[in-house]
Amino acid sequence: MAELPIDCRTEPSRYRHWKLALEGGVAYLTLDVNEDGGLRPGYKLKLNSYDLGVDIELADAVQRLRFEHPEVGAVVIRSQRDRIFCSGANINMLGLSSHHHKVNFCKFTNETRLAIEDASAHSRQTYICSINGIAAGGGYELALACEQILLADDGSSAVSLPELPLLAVLPGTGGLTRLVDKRLVRRDHADFFCTTAEGVRGKRARDWRLVDTLIPPSRLADETHKIAESVAARSDRPRDAKGISLPTIERAIEGDTIRYGHLTVEIDRERRAAKLRLNGPDAAPPADAAAIHGQGAAFWPLALARQLDDAMMHLRLNETEIGTWVLQSQGDGALVEAYDALLARQSSDWLVREIVLYWKRTLKRLDVSARSLIALVEPGSCFAGTLFELVLAADRSYMLDGTVDGSNLPAASIRLTAMNFGPCPMGNGLTRLASRFLAAPDRVDELKSEIGQAIDAEAADELGLVTFTPDDIDWEDEVRLAVEERAGFSPDGLTGMEANLRFAGPETLETKIFARLSAWQNWIFQRPNATGAEGALKLYGSGKQAKYDRKRA
Amino acid sequence: MAELPIDCRTEPSRYRHWKLALEGGVAYLTLDVNEDGGLRPGYKLKLNSYDLGVDIELADAVQRLRFEHPEVGAVVIRSQRDRIFCSGANINMLGLSSHHHKVNFCKFTNETRLAIEDASAHSRQTYICSINGIAAGGGYELALACEQILLADDGSSAVSLPELPLLAVLPGTGGLTRLVDKRLVRRDHADFFCTTAEGVRGKRARDWRLVDTLIPPSRLADETHKIAESVAARSDRPRDAKGISLPTIERAIEGDTIRYGHLTVEIDRERRAAKLRLNGPDAAPPADAAAIHGQGAAFWPLALARQLDDAMMHLRLNETEIGTWVLQSQGDGALVEAYDALLARQSSDWLVREIVLYWKRTLKRLDVSARSLIALVEPGSCFAGTLFELVLAADRSYMLDGTVDGSNLPAASIRLTAMNFGPCPMGNGLTRLASRFLAAPDRVDELKSEIGQAIDAEAADELGLVTFTPDDIDWEDEVRLAVEERAGFSPDGLTGMEANLRFAGPETLETKIFARLSAWQNWIFQRPNATGAEGALKLYGSGKQAKYDRKRA
Repeated sequence: MAELPIDCRTEPSRYRHWKLALEGGVAYLTLDVNEDGGLRPGYKLKLNSYDLGVDIELADAVQRLRFEHPEVGAVVIRSQRDRIFCSGANINMLGLSSHHHKVNFCKFTNETRLAIEDASAHSRQTYICSINGIAAGGGYELALACEQILLADDGSSAVSLPELPLLAVLPGTGGLTRLVDKRLVRRDHADFFCTTAEGVRGKRARDWRLVDTLIPPSRLADETHKIAESVAARSDRPRDAKGISLPTIERAIEGDTIRYGHLTVEIDRERRAAKLRLNGPDAAPPADAAAIHGQGAAFWPLALARQLDDAMMHLRLNETEIGTWVLQSQGDGALVEAYDALLARQSSDWLVREIVLYWKRTLKRLDVSARSLIALVEPGSCFAGTLFELVLAADRSYMLDGTVDGSNLPAASIRLTAMNFGPCPMGNGLTRLASRFLAAPDRVDELKSEIGQAIDAEAADELGLVTFTPDDIDWEDEVRLAVEERAGFSPDGLTGMEANLRFAGPETLETKIFARLSAWQNWIFQRPNATGAEGALKLYGSGKQAKYDRKRA
Repeated sequence: MAELPIDCRTEPSRYRHWKLALEGGVAYLTLDVNEDGGLRPGYKLKLNSYDLGVDIELADAVQRLRFEHPEVGAVVIRSQRDRIFCSGANINMLGLSSHHHKVNFCKFTNETRLAIEDASAHSRQTYICSINGIAAGGGYELALACEQILLADDGSSAVSLPELPLLAVLPGTGGLTRLVDKRLVRRDHADFFCTTAEGVRGKRARDWRLVDTLIPPSRLADETHKIAESVAARSDRPRDAKGISLPTIERAIEGDTIRYGHLTVEIDRERRAAKLRLNGPDAAPPADAAAIHGQGAAFWPLALARQLDDAMMHLRLNETEIGTWVLQSQGDGALVEAYDALLARQSSDWLVREIVLYWKRTLKRLDVSARSLIALVEPGSCFAGTLFELVLAADRSYMLDGTVDGSNLPAASIRLTAMNFGPCPMGNGLTRLASRFLAAPDRVDELKSEIGQAIDAEAADELGLVTFTPDDIDWEDEVRLAVEERAGFSPDGLTGMEANLRFAGPETLETKIFARLSAWQNWIFQRPNATGAEGALKLYGSGKQAKYDRKRA
């Protein structure tokens, strides 16, 4: 399958698979997959099955609903088709895909499901799934990401996770974890359910907690709407506010350079590294919430988050051999701090809430990116508050101690703001500072006294906020060696190592999905029993029986 | 490499790699690996490196110290060699091993490390590691399992995890998890450490929390002994008690039947299943602690635990294609209950404490076995208390409702005892009952009122204690279908699914090691970058450079 560049930028007028409709405080996201609309040639998206392209549209819709529709308090996910809700990830697509594409695909769909849950929990835009027909595999996993699952009680509508019996793989979008850890399905029931290809319907589905409510098919649409309206009525979103629109993110790709308004990405193919340079704001922040709304998508924190998010997706999907992301910044740290202060002051504004939540999700996307992250804190950089989270997200950071011979730039400093102490937790539920200082939890509170200070390299080292602080003489060699060394290691080994070291401390649904379930799925995606010439995933639909190596490992 | 049967039964007089010596309340376990003593032909165990055979001896020593030496309150792990503590798992052995052997090897070594930590925490036999020379890879992971790590401060002794840079794999025995979750090493320090093949020594090793204490080499032996003596002095183990001896576990393997004193294993190769039938006690329990000590290793709960443990290891290592373990029992549930009551009454006795801790570990070994577990509760069975934990550990259970036509056996019943409510937690820290009823936590307390009752199938179903309760007419078909269906699924898919469904709820060091780190390691063990013809693990020592697929996944 040819690996054409994948572009994650879209908008409702270009959707091929989803219809977005609004009815007062309720939005409807209706799945009607265009069979011939696959992202790649070679497969047909039959039975409302999906590929990455379908999920890119879903992710866009979830994002737009938050920013463009403050009046929406509930979102119903449903199918346009009669007997089929969604049959999950397209199997022929999976069979044709490279290992890294499968893994990337599963990661992105998981991030989209988590964005749905984040919208329900924190944007108060609650997702409800209304199932008429079969919700199989990824179809049921989409339902599991919703807060309520309504199922037609018609003797045939059913939910299922048939991956293991049919394909010899696992549900790849958090299904196993959400069964036992979100819906608290008893593990013996989950065992039966996940080994029964035809799934479970009716009363048993409800008794086993697989769905919440059974509704006669003739009343399904009406009851769904009633439930959605009552959920929407409990939302704190402002019914009469005006949303902001999210225009297409502008970018220019010229050779190995990608230019966004506030971000430049430069790819160094020899060192298999991409430098991401984030630019701080050009001017002081606007005065109040009204002015933020006036700037809309051009408001610096929102514009930068969108650009960083798009750049990460571009690099993940299209630059798979670029294994290291070098994080840099340029600008005035005091201005970044002023923007953070504005976000804190206006935190009760719905749009500001969305912007902060979006930074949280964007930073989480960084945390789970299978790339080595090296942060460079140099003279002229502006790693303050929100931007300092990138330094904390890095596997390792270097801060230049002092000035550089022949340069006018002042010595590098970093700044802490309220954004480092709560609003942007990692997937493990802790702030990056708390994750960093598990051995000295009091340190986090002590660091609050540093808010508002410009912290130089020596102090940053003392406070444990950066890894190494070479001076001008050592800087270039030390940084070059670190990046080159990384390029020499096994990419798989690095992915596994980083996934283990990045998430110390407590585990959550989210870390279980990314660090545990995903690892098992990656393993199984490599096993001949699934993806070998005689594996179940390869042979599905051929009429031939898979041949399994029977050894248990 | 020929796959000869592996026997886990050993004793100190047969050790080839470890020396066990006692000095009052301190035991010394000294590693002196016999290069030519590998479990399989084809590799030499150079530089105090180990294979499964070395770890089988270590596991045996850890177990014996608990039961045979109540007077020992501290155990020192050290090396006989001058400049090398331990260089970890033997790389040539790994390169020659099949995937399932590598996975089995890592699982067993992890269980042994956890047994060491369990001894320190609960048997109050505290492990201290005294490192003179290089502790690399699995060598340092062994140190990480100890409560204190002492390092010679001689300018060359160092600790390292060179797996990623040298072999393109991960530390396979919990190293990454223990770094950041047990020793709370900062993740950027951990990142540097795990990518630096030569490791870290001296002050940096201590400042980064990689070791606890630096000791000049000339004083290492004396200081180690002093520290061990002071730790031993704080133990609650009885200095003047007499241990019991653990004779060789007797078993007879005849064709597909393995007979132990209280356990029979029958292998059904066609259905790829092994039936494990545990026998209840023959008679009422002894009266008091003195009588338990008198029976020693013949005391039914201890004898059965040892037999079950040995049977599981035999099946794991030597019957890899037998993918389902069917758990059955036979005997008088009231007698099992009486034994449990005795264990509860005598819980302050050191030997009883060891027996209960051993059941805890044995049941955990069952939990992490990569086999489908189906429990059958039939007329004549004795699934009470401790033995009922096996039913709770099963992926699914069937309980026959009523009597069987033409049989005199009374209808099956189960019984709860205090053993179901605390002493045998799973790796996630919860009892199996609490893990089962995450959706209804009050249920666990309510079930306490059932203690002492014989619970029939209808009541067990009502209480949620078993999965299905077919009657005599349906029993045979339903059970046969369940076992045959399991044999038809992909073994890898089942392993991944079960690992995800079995451990809902909180995560601990232990579940992170088995469910997260192990899954990543399994994945990496399958990747051509590690184990392909040009992979790092295959080429190690050949002088050739590994060739990596650079795509990040």
